[in-house]
Amino acid sequence: MKTTTIPTISTGALSASRKVYVPGRLHDILVPQREIAVSNEVPVVVYDSSGPYTDLEPQINIAKGLKPVRGRWQQQRGDVQEYPARAVTSADNGFAEGARLTPAFPVQRAPWKARDGKAVTQLAYARAGIVTPEMEYVAIRENEGRLAAYRRDGESFGAELPDLVTPEFVRDEIARGRAIIPANINHPELEPMIIGRNFLVKINANIGNSAVTSSMEEEVEKMVWAIRWGADTVMDLSTGRNIHNIRDWIIRNSPVPIGTVPLYQALEKVGGIAEDLSWEVYRDTLIEQAEQGVDYFTIHAGVRLHMIPLTIERVTGIVSRGGSIMAKWCLHHHRESFLYEHFDEICDIMRAYDISFSLGDGLRPGSIADANDRAQFAELETLGELTKIAWAKDCQVMIEGPGHVAMHKIKANMDKQLKHCDEAPFYTLGPLTTDIAPGYDHITSAIGAAMIGWFGTAMLCYVTPKEHLGLPDRNDVKTGVITYKLAAHAADLAKGHPGAQIRDDALSRARFEFRWEDQFNLGLDPDTARSMHDETLPKEAHKLAHFCSMCGPKFCSMRISHDIRAEAQKHQGMEAMAEKFREGGALYVPVEKVNEPAE
Amino acid sequence: MKTTTIPTISTGALSASRKVYVPGRLHDILVPQREIAVSNEVPVVVYDSSGPYTDLEPQINIAKGLKPVRGRWQQQRGDVQEYPARAVTSADNGFAEGARLTPAFPVQRAPWKARDGKAVTQLAYARAGIVTPEMEYVAIRENEGRLAAYRRDGESFGAELPDLVTPEFVRDEIARGRAIIPANINHPELEPMIIGRNFLVKINANIGNSAVTSSMEEEVEKMVWAIRWGADTVMDLSTGRNIHNIRDWIIRNSPVPIGTVPLYQALEKVGGIAEDLSWEVYRDTLIEQAEQGVDYFTIHAGVRLHMIPLTIERVTGIVSRGGSIMAKWCLHHHRESFLYEHFDEICDIMRAYDISFSLGDGLRPGSIADANDRAQFAELETLGELTKIAWAKDCQVMIEGPGHVAMHKIKANMDKQLKHCDEAPFYTLGPLTTDIAPGYDHITSAIGAAMIGWFGTAMLCYVTPKEHLGLPDRNDVKTGVITYKLAAHAADLAKGHPGAQIRDDALSRARFEFRWEDQFNLGLDPDTARSMHDETLPKEAHKLAHFCSMCGPKFCSMRISHDIRAEAQKHQGMEAMAEKFREGGALYVPVEKVNEPAE
Repeated sequence: MKTTTIPTISTGALSASRKVYVPGRLHDILVPQREIAVSNEVPVVVYDSSGPYTDLEPQINIAKGLKPVRGRWQQQRGDVQEYPARAVTSADNGFAEGARLTPAFPVQRAPWKARDGKAVTQLAYARAGIVTPEMEYVAIRENEGRLAAYRRDGESFGAELPDLVTPEFVRDEIARGRAIIPANINHPELEPMIIGRNFLVKINANIGNSAVTSSMEEEVEKMVWAIRWGADTVMDLSTGRNIHNIRDWIIRNSPVPIGTVPLYQALEKVGGIAEDLSWEVYRDTLIEQAEQGVDYFTIHAGVRLHMIPLTIERVTGIVSRGGSIMAKWCLHHHRESFLYEHFDEICDIMRAYDISFSLGDGLRPGSIADANDRAQFAELETLGELTKIAWAKDCQVMIEGPGHVAMHKIKANMDKQLKHCDEAPFYTLGPLTTDIAPGYDHITSAIGAAMIGWFGTAMLCYVTPKEHLGLPDRNDVKTGVITYKLAAHAADLAKGHPGAQIRDDALSRARFEFRWEDQFNLGLDPDTARSMHDETLPKEAHKLAHFCSMCGPKFCSMRISHDIRAEAQKHQGMEAMAEKFREGGALYVPVEKVNEPAE
Repeated sequence: MKTTTIPTISTGALSASRKVYVPGRLHDILVPQREIAVSNEVPVVVYDSSGPYTDLEPQINIAKGLKPVRGRWQQQRGDVQEYPARAVTSADNGFAEGARLTPAFPVQRAPWKARDGKAVTQLAYARAGIVTPEMEYVAIRENEGRLAAYRRDGESFGAELPDLVTPEFVRDEIARGRAIIPANINHPELEPMIIGRNFLVKINANIGNSAVTSSMEEEVEKMVWAIRWGADTVMDLSTGRNIHNIRDWIIRNSPVPIGTVPLYQALEKVGGIAEDLSWEVYRDTLIEQAEQGVDYFTIHAGVRLHMIPLTIERVTGIVSRGGSIMAKWCLHHHRESFLYEHFDEICDIMRAYDISFSLGDGLRPGSIADANDRAQFAELETLGELTKIAWAKDCQVMIEGPGHVAMHKIKANMDKQLKHCDEAPFYTLGPLTTDIAPGYDHITSAIGAAMIGWFGTAMLCYVTPKEHLGLPDRNDVKTGVITYKLAAHAADLAKGHPGAQIRDDALSRARFEFRWEDQFNLGLDPDTARSMHDETLPKEAHKLAHFCSMCGPKFCSMRISHDIRAEAQKHQGMEAMAEKFREGGALYVPVEKVNEPAE
């Protein structure tokens, strides 16, 4: 590899955290959760998508891949068979050769697929009344905090959030098409997770190789870095050379579902000429990626010929890559796309591997001006029709949405999606609520993401500060992930997810009691919080100080609140306490001591 | 001064911008606006709060202060008189002496106040049917973009946004108490601005001296830096030494309204002991700051004795500094606060200088757990009562609100405020929509701020990334201001402000047409956008490239959209265009050229 620095994989426990594994009751499973230690309180248990990389003593060798979590679950169901893999071609890696070719992943297994056209999807099992290990796994995973019997408080807009998520509840939600577990049978390393409006709001992070240089370590580390901070799924949007081999390295090391847009690779195979795309090349690419274990495919089958003229007067035309490629193909051939015409056959492939559909929003608005227009909603209606076809084939489906949408137009998106797609999970980019802040689009979109998550969107696709400007680097990815984690959590709180508020309350108690380390550790990004605090109060003793540099000790409202509370509790009737109060100590601390710990 | 580096004042035009001054019709006034040049399009005119610092050739000498904008407007009304100023005491500057004493501002004018108990407030004039120069000034200022007769589109939740803001509309809104122009008659340097639900959403930035070191240049620069990026008002929350003199330097150089919390200085005068505060010390501080020209005072008169027990069971008690200080005083003396008991007299002072009330929310929630509780709303109801008293005295009033509030509880805050305070402008901190992201609270709060701004809040108090952690530095202030500008703009868009979308549309057109420089210049922070772009594509030629490093030329949806549009426009019926399309050029560009400009 021609990289100048070989990155190491980020491993090790998160701040003050240890991994615990909760066993199943129905199945032989161990479900990871993260326990954050809190001084003088019970630990706070949080959802953990970071995989074994954050174990206390992680055993990571990316050339071997992760140990399979799902073991032989699929095989035990008796409806899959091993078969010889499709041969890897030079085109799969963008014709990279010699020193330019990323080495193949060292361990190659024969792929599995369904026997005799059987449906091996979680949807098929759910409909048959079977509670799979995957279903029990996500049921346990979703329950962090609920057992603490917390008060419920929220506006769910029709979502039906149970007090406790049971395996049977999971099965029922999947059977109704209202949730999916993206889990290709060829991705045994996966820690199953669920996407649906009655579960915790999830977030996706996009990664992709860079055109100039990329090694397998770099690409694996991008995925590991994104999940370390909380990404629930990762989309590999690589283009160009080596994408087959790099995808192998990523999937074999990924505990989260991997999504792709197969069209990108198909386009590479035909030399980048959209008109030369064909069903045969596309189908071959689906099989190729299915065998590798991709868990969900973005498929832009909703872009139909008659919709293209609806985009001509738009301010920003078609801004989805896949959408624009398919629109160009449709115009050139003057016919419906091969994705639309061969949708049935696509379903057959998806059901043979249990790959979930992420029905792409090829006509999403790229500017405030284009939001909620006829092109966008015409495609959404088509996605609703395709959902029913996929469901009839026992395929799991989610629907992609938004883009740029002002706040007053967000709810209409959610309402229409629920109506036309019968509550299939919605998966939205942002939406960005204004166009005027390039460099800050993680924030313009976090506003919209939090709102649409509250309204019912099941997964939020992150946006980084570099959106519209360039390739996100490591810091941008982290900023995007943390921003979307906080937006998703704000949505969970507003929906009234039982237990969602436990972490807020624990952090607020720590804040009120000046337990600085607890405050950092309970936050989404302990490292940043700690370093911001230490900029002005670096000494170790300040971690016990009953104030911070914002107000200093004299003006610290929380400190004064403690005095008030102590006094009020001593003198229940609040009578005759006037003179007592003076004994409680003056607020005054000499100015010179502002930067010294008070006690 | 003991500063190691003396900062210079940030001056000079903003990116691709020039300042234009629009004359009045009723009065001899010149209202600043900012014109952003756009290639091949008419310039985009935007609201400009940055003052003469961003003139093309700024003439700034902070030792002289800004030239008076309001000239002798107040004096011409014939109801004010000059009088000898209250003598500055050593206590006013926190007993700083010798080298520790910041020099007094070199030019001292005698203060003005109302003659014979007259009301010299904008509210009094509005009620008398007088359209003041201040009113015409803000009417012109609010109209940026409206003249372009843009489409209207939004959900205003009962706000009544006119097609064009007229001086008479401004007068009527002020007369109804639904808007205020914070404009102390002793602040002639002020460029008047308006705060109300039927006007553009405004933002406030807080600044304050640091306990360790501060020079007058540093403090003035903090204000100038905040308004350069868009702060509409600035609160000086300084404590400790030198606050009198530093405040003078700030106000004499400030084109935006300056707000303070007089209680902070009063507390310094009694050595930091809350119980020793008295009406006399407080009253003296109000006069002191009134004579200097402070435009609005935060006054926590709504914290009443019987409300304090309501805070005892809270997770985070009382988190407002002013609220906690007053609560401690009330408990100690076991009586209602001197702010509440002397509210009439406070009104008399405010009306004599036209200082606006910002009725403080001493009991705002400091955590998700405490939101919308009885303590918070009991105080809000009291603020409603005080509003009526102040209005009866012809005083201008706004109401402070939120803090930490989950999304589903935000609207109730706005609705209750509108009801109890009869549409007096709401001025809210955030609200922060979750507690779990220290280091990212500008974002947790931008979500809430955008929403409550949409619902009707007139001004948003910014939150920086350092909230809860430490003193914001220069970068934090800029991040906080830009974040709140985008939140306020998202609210303006959603409310349907005529013309608000002009800037979004211009930027999106630039984006679609690959006019990179226009895209940077039209954004809220051109410098950051440009530097992010240049990280991967630094060459000047890339500013003309029809792609960016996110997707590269081959996968650039906008580029493909142009091909589609060109073709579709050539062949209106979209017939027989199949072979033509091939001539349009392949999408393919050799991978090696990804980092080269395509044309």
